[in-house]
Amino acid sequence: MNSVKSIQHVSDLGTYRCVSGKRLQNVRIGFETYGTLNADKSNAILVCHYFSGNARAAGPADDVHELPGWWDKLIGPGKALDTDRYFIVSSNTLANLNACDGYSVTTGPASENPETGAAWGMDFPLVTVEDFVRVQKRLLEHLGIERLVAVAGPSGGSVQAIQWSVEYPEMVPRVIAVISPGLYIHPYAAAMMELWTRPIIADPAWNRGDYYTANPPREGLAQALALVNLASLSYEVVGEFGYGPAEEGKHPAESLQHQFIADATLDGIARARAETLDANSFLYMVHAYKLYDVRPRLHKSRARYLFIPSATDMVFPPHLSATAVDDLRAAGLDAELSMLNVSGGHLDGLMQIDRAAAGIRQFLDS
Amino acid sequence: MNSVKSIQHVSDLGTYRCVSGKRLQNVRIGFETYGTLNADKSNAILVCHYFSGNARAAGPADDVHELPGWWDKLIGPGKALDTDRYFIVSSNTLANLNACDGYSVTTGPASENPETGAAWGMDFPLVTVEDFVRVQKRLLEHLGIERLVAVAGPSGGSVQAIQWSVEYPEMVPRVIAVISPGLYIHPYAAAMMELWTRPIIADPAWNRGDYYTANPPREGLAQALALVNLASLSYEVVGEFGYGPAEEGKHPAESLQHQFIADATLDGIARARAETLDANSFLYMVHAYKLYDVRPRLHKSRARYLFIPSATDMVFPPHLSATAVDDLRAAGLDAELSMLNVSGGHLDGLMQIDRAAAGIRQFLDS
Repeated sequence: MNSVKSIQHVSDLGTYRCVSGKRLQNVRIGFETYGTLNADKSNAILVCHYFSGNARAAGPADDVHELPGWWDKLIGPGKALDTDRYFIVSSNTLANLNACDGYSVTTGPASENPETGAAWGMDFPLVTVEDFVRVQKRLLEHLGIERLVAVAGPSGGSVQAIQWSVEYPEMVPRVIAVISPGLYIHPYAAAMMELWTRPIIADPAWNRGDYYTANPPREGLAQALALVNLASLSYEVVGEFGYGPAEEGKHPAESLQHQFIADATLDGIARARAETLDANSFLYMVHAYKLYDVRPRLHKSRARYLFIPSATDMVFPPHLSATAVDDLRAAGLDAELSMLNVSGGHLDGLMQIDRAAAGIRQFLDS
Repeated sequence: MNSVKSIQHVSDLGTYRCVSGKRLQNVRIGFETYGTLNADKSNAILVCHYFSGNARAAGPADDVHELPGWWDKLIGPGKALDTDRYFIVSSNTLANLNACDGYSVTTGPASENPETGAAWGMDFPLVTVEDFVRVQKRLLEHLGIERLVAVAGPSGGSVQAIQWSVEYPEMVPRVIAVISPGLYIHPYAAAMMELWTRPIIADPAWNRGDYYTANPPREGLAQALALVNLASLSYEVVGEFGYGPAEEGKHPAESLQHQFIADATLDGIARARAETLDANSFLYMVHAYKLYDVRPRLHKSRARYLFIPSATDMVFPPHLSATAVDDLRAAGLDAELSMLNVSGGHLDGLMQIDRAAAGIRQFLDS
């Protein structure tokens, strides 16, 4: 058996009071688990998803899922997050982007506002990474889990993992932060994410977030995703898309309307993805991450940290992980860095994560 | 005297036949010169401007110019491009972006189409870097210059400089290519530039390029420029903008509408710049650069090349210059690389170019 069975669960978490003070009723969050929780409930690892990811961290491609889970190379029997030993929990955050995929359950701007019966849209309360983590904590309570072996995640998932270590330090002995922005969102990264949101705002179909009974802003969302995707790739990966006209007989040298193959490929990927993601959730998620900063609360942490940057990452370049390790050590905490020497950029935090398997295994056993 | 006098000249170049085959009548190009052309016209250096730059490469801030010329640290008496020795020529390209600044003369989409009496808009012929160079060649003919000491430029200016070396090899013994994309535009860089254009296309005010008698697409152009600017900066520079709310009492933790200071600073820079640039020219310039590829014509060159990348460049990372040097050497040409060890990203190819002065001086003397 090289794969794990994945089951979509939904946790009804009742009323939740956001950090902003606003209340959310009927909070529902989808989650998946891999492996078996042991009798004393001491073998759980929480895995947190990236910006546009969802709870499906592992499992094979099937009728419902076009691709294997996004960390399937890491999670499974005999893999680094070994489902023969560990019970892996992976949950959707609040305002998960995949609200429209017909599979991912979340509570966000696309959910029904109980007071109006219509979708929240931009009336949904501002949510933060603290909120993501506190909702996940409730989910673990429902599962009876009081202490974790580790919290792990790539990119935005690493942000949640680090937030966990200052929010519930008694539960988190280890953090595995892959392709991470570090301990806060640097103004450069914040500005980059802010610019990702602009094509959505500029799309007339966005309509200030009120589009759930009309056409969603697919074009604006596709442009936003194209920016995210390009940043997540690398020169080597995009070079492999090829060099030359997208359509035979329509060379770009002849017209400003003719495309190169790499541009058309990137557009195709972004447009396909825009079909299943929610534009307002994209805005909420960016804002949540922009507010992330655990530096004032580091003294609360009792965790050890393993940072795994990708050498060619252009979203969160490796120097951000190096700075985080320095800052954690300066705060008296145990932190180490293990570079993924890969050529595929940010995305290799998913695609090539198996290269970090030995280091992760060692970190979990120590 | 630490500065040079700059004079805006305009060259009327008559009818020019583009590489595409289309004819442009009444081609007019603004240019500036610094220093004195010697009697045998053997001391000229051509300096080419970057993507959004213009002919004003040197000279102090004054009533007309808010800032010194963009390579004023390099060009002047006793500087690396020493105006006591050399005659520096700097010209606007075709379709120069600064068409609306009331100062820069160019022939592009904002110019009058002689057949209609209205602005060309998107009916302007597709132009390429070859066209930029051939028009500059005519300008040099008007000045009686038959051979150059060197062609130099940053970013898009390096592209023109390298194109010069295969287009008119008998005129170009030396190329100085600063913060350069190399010998062609890699599909990654091409995709990045393509995404820069999208906010313009998405702005209803763009109106398929027909906006010269109405409101120009300022917001779309500002968003495009924000993407260019952020890519041109670095973590260190944007970090210096500060961390915190843009407006006191309006913390981003309270509302998705509240901005961080770095975002607001970048928006301010982009919006101010959008007042004087032309959106259609932006589209034409991106397309011209995307078509750039001198690799098939390297055998024509007789030049020696000096590449000067910026260590922290995120527009054209240093590995592109390294690849270009390798490819030139493989073609039997003389090429060297001198890294600018700076922290300010792409923009330091302008701001910190004086750090390369010794290397440039040596290259010009050898």
